Amino acid sequence: MADVGQEEDFEAAKIKAKKIGASACYVEDLRQEFIEQLCFPAIQCNAVYESVYLLGTSLARPVIARAQIRVAQKEGCIAVSHGCTGKGNDQVRFELAFYALQPTIKVIAPWRLPEFFDRFAGRNDLLSYAEQAGIPVTSTKSKPWSMDENIAHCSYEAGILEDPDVTAPEDMWKLTVDPLKAPDTPEDFTLVFSKGLPSKLITNGKTITDSVDLFVEMNAIARRHGVGRIDIVENRFIGLKSRGCYETPGFTCLRSAHIDLEGLVLDREVRALRDQFLTVNYSKLLYNGLYFSPEREFLEGSIAVSQKNVNGQVRCRVYKGSFLVLGRSSDTEKLYDESESSMDQIGSFSPVDTTGFIAVQAIRLKKYGEAKAAKDEPL
Amino acid sequence: MADVGQEEDFEAAKIKAKKIGASACYVEDLRQEFIEQLCFPAIQCNAVYESVYLLGTSLARPVIARAQIRVAQKEGCIAVSHGCTGKGNDQVRFELAFYALQPTIKVIAPWRLPEFFDRFAGRNDLLSYAEQAGIPVTSTKSKPWSMDENIAHCSYEAGILEDPDVTAPEDMWKLTVDPLKAPDTPEDFTLVFSKGLPSKLITNGKTITDSVDLFVEMNAIARRHGVGRIDIVENRFIGLKSRGCYETPGFTCLRSAHIDLEGLVLDREVRALRDQFLTVNYSKLLYNGLYFSPEREFLEGSIAVSQKNVNGQVRCRVYKGSFLVLGRSSDTEKLYDESESSMDQIGSFSPVDTTGFIAVQAIRLKKYGEAKAAKDEPL
Amino acid sequence: MADVGQEEDFEAAKIKAKKIGASACYVEDLRQEFIEQLCFPAIQCNAVYESVYLLGTSLARPVIARAQIRVAQKEGCIAVSHGCTGKGNDQVRFELAFYALQPTIKVIAPWRLPEFFDRFAGRNDLLSYAEQAGIPVTSTKSKPWSMDENIAHCSYEAGILEDPDVTAPEDMWKLTVDPLKAPDTPEDFTLVFSKGLPSKLITNGKTITDSVDLFVEMNAIARRHGVGRIDIVENRFIGLKSRGCYETPGFTCLRSAHIDLEGLVLDREVRALRDQFLTVNYSKLLYNGLYFSPEREFLEGSIAVSQKNVNGQVRCRVYKGSFLVLGRSSDTEKLYDESESSMDQIGSFSPVDTTGFIAVQAIRLKKYGEAKAAKDEPL
Amino acid sequence: MADVGQEEDFEAAKIKAKKIGASACYVEDLRQEFIEQLCFPAIQCNAVYESVYLLGTSLARPVIARAQIRVAQKEGCIAVSHGCTGKGNDQVRFELAFYALQPTIKVIAPWRLPEFFDRFAGRNDLLSYAEQAGIPVTSTKSKPWSMDENIAHCSYEAGILEDPDVTAPEDMWKLTVDPLKAPDTPEDFTLVFSKGLPSKLITNGKTITDSVDLFVEMNAIARRHGVGRIDIVENRFIGLKSRGCYETPGFTCLRSAHIDLEGLVLDREVRALRDQFLTVNYSKLLYNGLYFSPEREFLEGSIAVSQKNVNGQVRCRVYKGSFLVLGRSSDTEKLYDESESSMDQIGSFSPVDTTGFIAVQAIRLKKYGEAKAAKDEPL
Repeated sequence: MADVGQEEDFEAAKIKAKKIGASACYVEDLRQEFIEQLCFPAIQCNAVYESVYLLGTSLARPVIARAQIRVAQKEGCIAVSHGCTGKGNDQVRFELAFYALQPTIKVIAPWRLPEFFDRFAGRNDLLSYAEQAGIPVTSTKSKPWSMDENIAHCSYEAGILEDPDVTAPEDMWKLTVDPLKAPDTPEDFTLVFSKGLPSKLITNGKTITDSVDLFVEMNAIARRHGVGRIDIVENRFIGLKSRGCYETPGFTCLRSAHIDLEGLVLDREVRALRDQFLTVNYSKLLYNGLYFSPEREFLEGSIAVSQKNVNGQVRCRVYKGSFLVLGRSSDTEKLYDESESSMDQIGSFSPVDTTGFIAVQAIRLKKYGEAKAAKDEPL
Repeated sequence: MADVGQEEDFEAAKIKAKKIGASACYVEDLRQEFIEQLCFPAIQCNAVYESVYLLGTSLARPVIARAQIRVAQKEGCIAVSHGCTGKGNDQVRFELAFYALQPTIKVIAPWRLPEFFDRFAGRNDLLSYAEQAGIPVTSTKSKPWSMDENIAHCSYEAGILEDPDVTAPEDMWKLTVDPLKAPDTPEDFTLVFSKGLPSKLITNGKTITDSVDLFVEMNAIARRHGVGRIDIVENRFIGLKSRGCYETPGFTCLRSAHIDLEGLVLDREVRALRDQFLTVNYSKLLYNGLYFSPEREFLEGSIAVSQKNVNGQVRCRVYKGSFLVLGRSSDTEKLYDESESSMDQIGSFSPVDTTGFIAVQAIRLKKYGEAKAAKDEPL
Repeated sequence: MADVGQEEDFEAAKIKAKKIGASACYVEDLRQEFIEQLCFPAIQCNAVYESVYLLGTSLARPVIARAQIRVAQKEGCIAVSHGCTGKGNDQVRFELAFYALQPTIKVIAPWRLPEFFDRFAGRNDLLSYAEQAGIPVTSTKSKPWSMDENIAHCSYEAGILEDPDVTAPEDMWKLTVDPLKAPDTPEDFTLVFSKGLPSKLITNGKTITDSVDLFVEMNAIARRHGVGRIDIVENRFIGLKSRGCYETPGFTCLRSAHIDLEGLVLDREVRALRDQFLTVNYSKLLYNGLYFSPEREFLEGSIAVSQKNVNGQVRCRVYKGSFLVLGRSSDTEKLYDESESSMDQIGSFSPVDTTGFIAVQAIRLKKYGEAKAAKDEPL
Repeated sequence: MADVGQEEDFEAAKIKAKKIGASACYVEDLRQEFIEQLCFPAIQCNAVYESVYLLGTSLARPVIARAQIRVAQKEGCIAVSHGCTGKGNDQVRFELAFYALQPTIKVIAPWRLPEFFDRFAGRNDLLSYAEQAGIPVTSTKSKPWSMDENIAHCSYEAGILEDPDVTAPEDMWKLTVDPLKAPDTPEDFTLVFSKGLPSKLITNGKTITDSVDLFVEMNAIARRHGVGRIDIVENRFIGLKSRGCYETPGFTCLRSAHIDLEGLVLDREVRALRDQFLTVNYSKLLYNGLYFSPEREFLEGSIAVSQKNVNGQVRCRVYKGSFLVLGRSSDTEKLYDESESSMDQIGSFSPVDTTGFIAVQAIRLKKYGEAKAAKDEPL
C-alpha cells in the first residue's frame, strides 16, 4: 500500500490484507517523494490538463508504481497487479510505469481478464461478492461514484457523475468545505519560492519550510475556505470522454501563486516558450502515464533550466472558494523596474525610440494593408 | 469618440470637444462590432495572455482604430492622433492598426514628441495645465492610477499600482462588487453556444439572444457577484514588465463556460492543437496590437474551422467572486458517450484491447527502461 | 486493387485474382484522387516526417482504404482485409481509415492472427507456400526487401535493409536513375502555383496543367536526373525504430519549389505559424494513419486559409540528384519589394526608425545583461 | 577585426587600419569559439531558418560582438561601431549583442546617421569616396553584390540579386566548386558524434578530432564537391523580405549527418519535441540576433539535455552538390533493435497486441465517423 497522503487506516488495512491471504503487506510512506518529485515540478511548470484539471491522480501514479516495483523486486515477485478498470487512464499509467521500471515484469489486470470481467460486470457485483465472502470494504452502494485521494487532491468520477449534466451532490466533496459554508472572513498568507519551488509558507506568524509540512498546512488553509473544486469533461488517453470532479485545495494555491510570481521575475520569452512547450507537454505526459519516459527526462531537465530565477514571494488570500493575489516581491530578481515601467517618469529609453519601434513593426503590416487594398478586400 | 460600452457622458464630451476647438466630433457606437468581431472570436479560442489576463483593453483597440480611420477618411484628415504614453502597449496597438488600415496616414503621438513630453513630465503636469486652461477633466489627482473601460472590462494601472506589492485599494474597482459584499446566495444561469459563439443567455426565466443584450446582461450578473477581478505583473510588447489590475465580469463567465462546453463536444486532438497554437498565438497578437495582420486573418480562419461542433449549453453559477459549472449538455454533438465511458458497463470495445494498447505503448518505454538499466541510471 | 500509379499489370492481376478464387475483382483508378486530395495538401504544407521522409506511402493509404470500403459496401461485405505485417505502420493506417469510414466493419489482418503467423513465420515461408500452391508472385527470394510503390514514391524496407549500416544496393532503386549515371547536362523547367497548388509545369516548350499529367511529367524529369532518394531510420507509430529507403522524384521537386515560392509571397508570421503548427501536425497525422479524423479536417481547413496568396512561379533545375532553384516571381503578390529591401536605396521608412526598433528590443536584453552582471555570470 | 575563418589578409588589414588613423588594431582569432560555442549547438539542434537557411551569418555575430566589447572594455571605449546598413539583420544582431554585453555602451551606426546617409546614398558613393580619399578597398563596382564570409559559410545579397528572378551568376560563388565541374567520382567519409557534437571526421585514413581542424577538413571535402549552395527569399527581422544566396559546405554535411544519426539513437518523442520547440525557436533567435538573451540560455540548456544519447557514427557521401548517407551505427545506443523491427521475426511483443492498440486508437475515430455519418457529411 502506498501512503500518498490519503486519509486511510493503514493498520486496519494491514490486518485486512493478512486476513484475506496476503503473504506480506507493505505500507510505504511516499508523501515526501510524491510532493518533491512529482508535485513540485508540476508547480514549477504550472501543469494543467485541458485548461482545468490539475492532474492530482496522475501525479501520484509514478511514485506508487515505483514503490510497488521496489517491493516486488524485494519479494522476488514475477508479476504485479492493480485494480483499475479497463476503460480508464490509471491502468495505462500504472502499467507503463511498471514496464519501464522493470521491462520483464508481468502485469495482472483483473478488470481486463475475461475470467474476471465475465463474472463481475461492475462495482455492484464486486460489492455483493465482498459481502458474501466476508471481505470488509469501505465503499458502499450508497456512494455512487468512485474516488481517488492523495495529499494533493481527491477525484470523483463514474456512477451518477457519468451524466455530465448532473450537478455533483454537495455531500460528495470530501476535502474542501462548501464555499457557501466557508468563513465570511478571508484568510491571508505568504508563499515563498526558490527556483520555482515552494520553500516557505508564512501564516499566522508561523513559517513552515519542510515540504510535507508546507503542503499539509497549505491544504488546511485552502480546505477550510473551499478552494480548488472543479468539474470537467475531459479526454482520456484511450480516446473516450469522461466526466470528473476534482478538489485540489493546497496545490491550487501553490500553482496560482507560482504563476503570479513568474509574472514578476521570469523573462517574457522564457515564459512564453515554457508555457507553450514545457507546460503543455509535461502535463500531457503526466496525464497519459508517460512519466518514466525519455521525454519526461528531457522536459524535466528543461523545466529546471527555466526556473533558476523564480525566486520571491507572493502574498495570497483565500475566500469562499477563491484564491487571490494581494501582492508579490523579490529580493533578488530585478527584471521588474518600477521607474522604467512608470507612466510618470522618463526612464532609460527615449519615447522617441518607440516611434522607430512602431515604424519598423509597421513595415510588414503596411505591405499587408496595401495588398488588401489592391485586392479590394476590406480590413 | 468610440462608444465601446464604457460608462461615459457622450453628450458632455461632444460639448467639451467643441468648446476646446474641435472642428467636428463623432461618437460612434461600436459595441456590436466590438462584441461580435473581437470578443466573440476571443471567446471561441479561450484567449488569455500569460495565463491570466483576458485582453480586455487589447480587444477594443482594433475597432476604435478602424472607426477613427473611417472618420479620418471621411473628413479628409492627413493625420490621426492618440493620447497613449510612450511606454505602454496601446500606442503600438493603435498605430499598427492605423498603418495597416491606411499605410499613408500620419500619426501624432504627443507623449512621444519632445515638445510635449519636455513640457509635461506626467499626468500631474497635465492635470495642472487643464486646470489653468479651463479644460474640464474627470480624472483627479486623488485617483492615483490610470483606467481604461469598455463593455468587456476595466483596467487599472500606473500610479500607486506601480509597486507590485501594493494591494489594490478596495475603492479602486469600478465594475464589480467586492466579493466580500456580494450576495450570500449564488445565482445560476445557462449559456448556450452555437459554433463556439454565445447564442443565448437564460436567466430568471428570460432568454436573451441579441449579442449586445446578452453581453450586458451577463455583465450585470457577474458584476453583482464580484466575478472577474485579477491582478498581474505582465510583459508588455516593448519588453517592460508592468503591473495591471483588471476586472472582466461577463467575459470571464462566457469564456469559462465555453472552455467547459468544449470538454463535452470538441475532439481531444482538435482541442489540443487549438490550445497550443491558436489560443496562444491569437492571444499574443491581440496583446501586441497585430490584429490587422496576415496572421490574424490566418488564425481567425482556423478558429472558425475548429468551432463547428461547439454546440450545446452550460449551466453556470456565480458566487462571491467565483464562477462554477453545474452541468453541460448538447443536443447535437455525440462525442461523449455515457455507456462507453461507464465504469459499470462493457461498451463497444473489449477490455482486452486495452491490454494490446498498453503493450504497444510500452514498446518504446521498455527500450528506455532497458537502456537506463544498462547505463545504471535509476528511474 | 487500387491503381495509385504503381507500375503493375492490372489485367494480369485480375486474372490471377479470379484464378485463386476471388468472387469479384475491382481495379479502381485512384490517381487523380490521390494526387489532388492527398499529395497536393501535403505539398501546400510542405509535409515531411522527421526532417526527411516525404510520406509517400502514408499518402496513398487513405485513398486506397476509402476505395476498399466503397467496394465493400457495394458488395455488401462484412469484413475487409489487408496484408500488412503486425509491426508496421500500414496496418494502423488502413485499419484506422476503415474504422472511421465504416465504424461497424470487421477487419481481417492475417499477419496478426495466430493461425496465420504461427504457420508462416515470414516472407520466405509465404513465398514457399505460393510456390507449392501454384500462386504466381512477382516477389522473389533474391530481392531481399519489401517495396511499396505509387505515383508519388517507392519505398524499400526490411530484409537486408534492417541493418541500418548496410548501404542500399544500387540495383534496389527502381524509380530513379543512379545520380552517377544521370545526364551531365542539367534540365530546367518552371513550376507555377495557384493558392499553393501546382497548376502548371512548363518544360521544353510544353505547358502541362492537368494534375495527373503534371505529376507524371514532373516524375519523368526528376527520375532521369536521380532526384529524390533518401535513406532514414525513422520512428514508427507503434514505437519501434525502422530503416527505410525512399525515392520520391517529382514530389520532391514540387515540394521544394513550393517552399521556395512561399519565401517570396507568404507573410513571415503566417509561414512561421504554419510551419510550427500545420506542417508538423499534418505530417504526423498522415504518418500515423489518422487521416480520417477531426484533426485532419481542422488542419486541412487551416492549410487552405494559409495558402490563398501562394501564387507565382519558380524556375527550377535538376542535376545528378540535386534540385535547385534558379529564380522565382509572382505577378499578383507584392510582399517582396525590391526597392524597400535594397541596400542601395532609402525606402519608405527611415534608417533612424531602426535605431528606435533596436533600442526597444534592447530594453529586455539590457535588463538581462544587468542581471547577469549583478550575479557575476559572464555572457 | 574578428578572424572567424574568412579568407582575409589580416596583416594587410592591420597596416591599413593604422594608415587610416586607428589608434589600435586587434585581430582576434575567434574560430574555435565560433565553432564550439555557436556552430556546434546549431548542429545539435539542426538549426535552420525558414526551411532552408543554415544561419551562417547569424552564427558569427555573437562571437564578433563579444570580442569587440572585450576590446572596447580593455581600451576604455565609450562607444562601438559597425558598418551594417539600416535595413538588414546584422545591425540588429550586433547592437542587441552589444547592449546585452554592456548595457551602457554607445553604438555608432553610420548608415543610420543622417549626416552619413545624406552624404552617401549607397555602396557606389562609398567606393568613390574611398577612391578619392586614397583608402584601399577590395570591393569593386564590378561585383554587384555584398558578401559575408566566415568558416561556416559565405553569403551573397543585394545588387543584382535584389531581383529574385535573376539567377546567381556562376562566378559569384566563392566557397564551393560548381557542381557541374565537381569530380565525377563521389567521396566518402565518416562522421562520429558524441552527445550530438561532431567528435571525429574519418577520411582517407585520417582521423581528425580537433574541432577547428575537423571543420576545416569537412569544408575542404564539401567544397570540392559543390555541396551546400542555396538561394532563398527570406523574411528579415525588421519585416522586409530579402533575397540571399548562401554556401555552407562543411556545415551542411555536419548538420545532415547529425539529423541522420538522431534517427538511430534519439527517442521519437524527444526528437519531436526538440524539433518543434528547440529547433524552431533556437533558429529564430539566432536569426533575429537574440543570442545574448534569457531565452537562448534556456533553450541551450534544453538542447544539451536532449543530446546525451546522440552518440554514434554516420557514413557519408558527397557528389556533385549532393550529400548522401550510406549507413549509420552506434556502439552505445540501443533504441534501434533489428530483431524487434524485423518483418521476418516475431519480437518481444505479440502481433495480437497491435490489434488492441488499433482498436483503442479507433475509439475516437469511430465516434468521429459516426458523427459525420449522422450529419450526412462524407469522409
